[in-house]
Amino acid sequence: MTFSQQIQAKLDQLTKPQGSLGQLEHIALQVALNQRTLTPDVSQALVCICAADHGLAESGVSAFPQAVTRQMVLNFLNGGAAINVFSRQAGADFELLDCGIKEPVVPPANSAATLLNYRIASGTENCLHAEAMTAEQFRQALHYGEERVGHWLQSGYQLIALGEMGIGNTSSAALLMSALTGQPIEQCVGRGTGHDDAGLARKLDILTQARARLDASASPEQIGACFGGFEIVTLAGMIMAAQGTPLTLIVDGFIVTAAALLAEALQPGCCESVLFAHEGDEQAHASLLDHLNADPILKLNLRLGEGSGAALVIPIVRSAVAMLNEMASFTDAGVSGKTP
Amino acid sequence: MTFSQQIQAKLDQLTKPQGSLGQLEHIALQVALNQRTLTPDVSQALVCICAADHGLAESGVSAFPQAVTRQMVLNFLNGGAAINVFSRQAGADFELLDCGIKEPVVPPANSAATLLNYRIASGTENCLHAEAMTAEQFRQALHYGEERVGHWLQSGYQLIALGEMGIGNTSSAALLMSALTGQPIEQCVGRGTGHDDAGLARKLDILTQARARLDASASPEQIGACFGGFEIVTLAGMIMAAQGTPLTLIVDGFIVTAAALLAEALQPGCCESVLFAHEGDEQAHASLLDHLNADPILKLNLRLGEGSGAALVIPIVRSAVAMLNEMASFTDAGVSGKTP
Repeated sequence: MTFSQQIQAKLDQLTKPQGSLGQLEHIALQVALNQRTLTPDVSQALVCICAADHGLAESGVSAFPQAVTRQMVLNFLNGGAAINVFSRQAGADFELLDCGIKEPVVPPANSAATLLNYRIASGTENCLHAEAMTAEQFRQALHYGEERVGHWLQSGYQLIALGEMGIGNTSSAALLMSALTGQPIEQCVGRGTGHDDAGLARKLDILTQARARLDASASPEQIGACFGGFEIVTLAGMIMAAQGTPLTLIVDGFIVTAAALLAEALQPGCCESVLFAHEGDEQAHASLLDHLNADPILKLNLRLGEGSGAALVIPIVRSAVAMLNEMASFTDAGVSGKTP
Repeated sequence: MTFSQQIQAKLDQLTKPQGSLGQLEHIALQVALNQRTLTPDVSQALVCICAADHGLAESGVSAFPQAVTRQMVLNFLNGGAAINVFSRQAGADFELLDCGIKEPVVPPANSAATLLNYRIASGTENCLHAEAMTAEQFRQALHYGEERVGHWLQSGYQLIALGEMGIGNTSSAALLMSALTGQPIEQCVGRGTGHDDAGLARKLDILTQARARLDASASPEQIGACFGGFEIVTLAGMIMAAQGTPLTLIVDGFIVTAAALLAEALQPGCCESVLFAHEGDEQAHASLLDHLNADPILKLNLRLGEGSGAALVIPIVRSAVAMLNEMASFTDAGVSGKTP
């Protein structure tokens, strides 16, 4: 009996018709597999947001000005953003990585989050005119992700909700998706956090020009360096480094899913142990999830980012794990099985 | 400005692109509307399971023997069922109504739940041969639901997750759905908690016979009495009585949704203030939700009942409400709005 079969056998002895808890059973199975135990623990949870700026933002791909990256980082540190609220509700710790915000942010007194310096540079280059980052910067961002995973393991975390902040990063994600999956750019572009039709058309026009920088012969490393954001590559490094460890990572919306796509291209199989939080409102997200054979847990039409969907999933993962740990078996409870 | 518009205006001033929290914004709006306040509170939550037996079970409509109703009620009282686990995870109280289990259940010492006597009779009549209940019993069950809502209001509860237990009650729900919506019975029947193809065919055959007891001229009261279970009619009474009160009720799966359908038929509009927890795996559930214009929050392929989906939604409702109460506004946080 494989370990996976042992977990399934335990699930099937609990006082419920077999399989009747649907996707919760898959979640419990995955967490137990990651931790190699029939009694997993997800009490120690963390929300980690990677933030960075994008050179492409200066070309007007976003509905919001680039300064909002920095402003929202201050909002995270002051505890007033949606992700602060959801982290508190989930009883999760919260940390924020500066992966390359245009100007470094000085945390306020009594900051609601830890701000960590994983800066690669003051934002990426504008990929309309140059590669977003050098090959060396790309490797450094992956390495930073790996380093952070090491810290989480040392700190005893079990469940990590991954989020992001970076004005312009749905554009970066769309370019990565197009180049890594081969889908035309127009199928990868969406409204981001708030474009109207005209804004969307302008965004598509700019991304079509940027996309032309690479042809089908580009490697995942070249694609990542050309179109990536520092936060996206760092997130990819985290997903790669978590493979084979007891950590369960929760992937948030379109942008973190693009990071997962990059990670999977660089290290095939690394997304198997990951949970996908939700199918977001960004129109290309469903097709990106399909490409990764991902089965998202929620569909609440979110399009905020920040890790908001991933944080909302934490209580559901905890309920799934508690089901495996705490439910009575048919034998213990004296409940009859199906009529023969 | 209507009160609904005032709530929406508050939501739109929070530091997120307008509408970017999707369905969470609708949830926050509904709870705030129910409580008539811009700062709602859902800290006091309760899971309420209504349990009863069905005469139709003796005809073999369920994959499980009728004794399982009683056994599972004992499992609830001993704290070993999925709904116990999810209630604990959600930090919700838990109560259990005996609406007509075949034989009264004696709670164990140190019971994990309060067992309340709302018994109408020792199970319904078999609706293959007679009406499930008398008109008087039907009115009594509605009244019991209303009475319970009064207790919740007195006790200060704000959020109620509604669940059920009763072997045979997907059959009762299917008959109610067919008679109340006019859809053919075969479109309302599903596998319940665990039928194979042969079991499903047998169930459909029996329900087709039972369905023939009523024609299109039957009133909602007649339909409810003919096909209802005591737990389903009590749940309908709760939904009707909660209309216009500050309570937010969360409707669980197929069976509680059938109770909501009955409630809506008896008192049109009463489902507007209710949240629908999830689209379950029972095949007719999606179409039943459509009929009610309901927008379910989760889709986890659950088919357990017990209120399990409704309990899983409690943390999501709390996050939605915390968003409305705790997030910073654009002005307070100094975050720029969209580029003009």
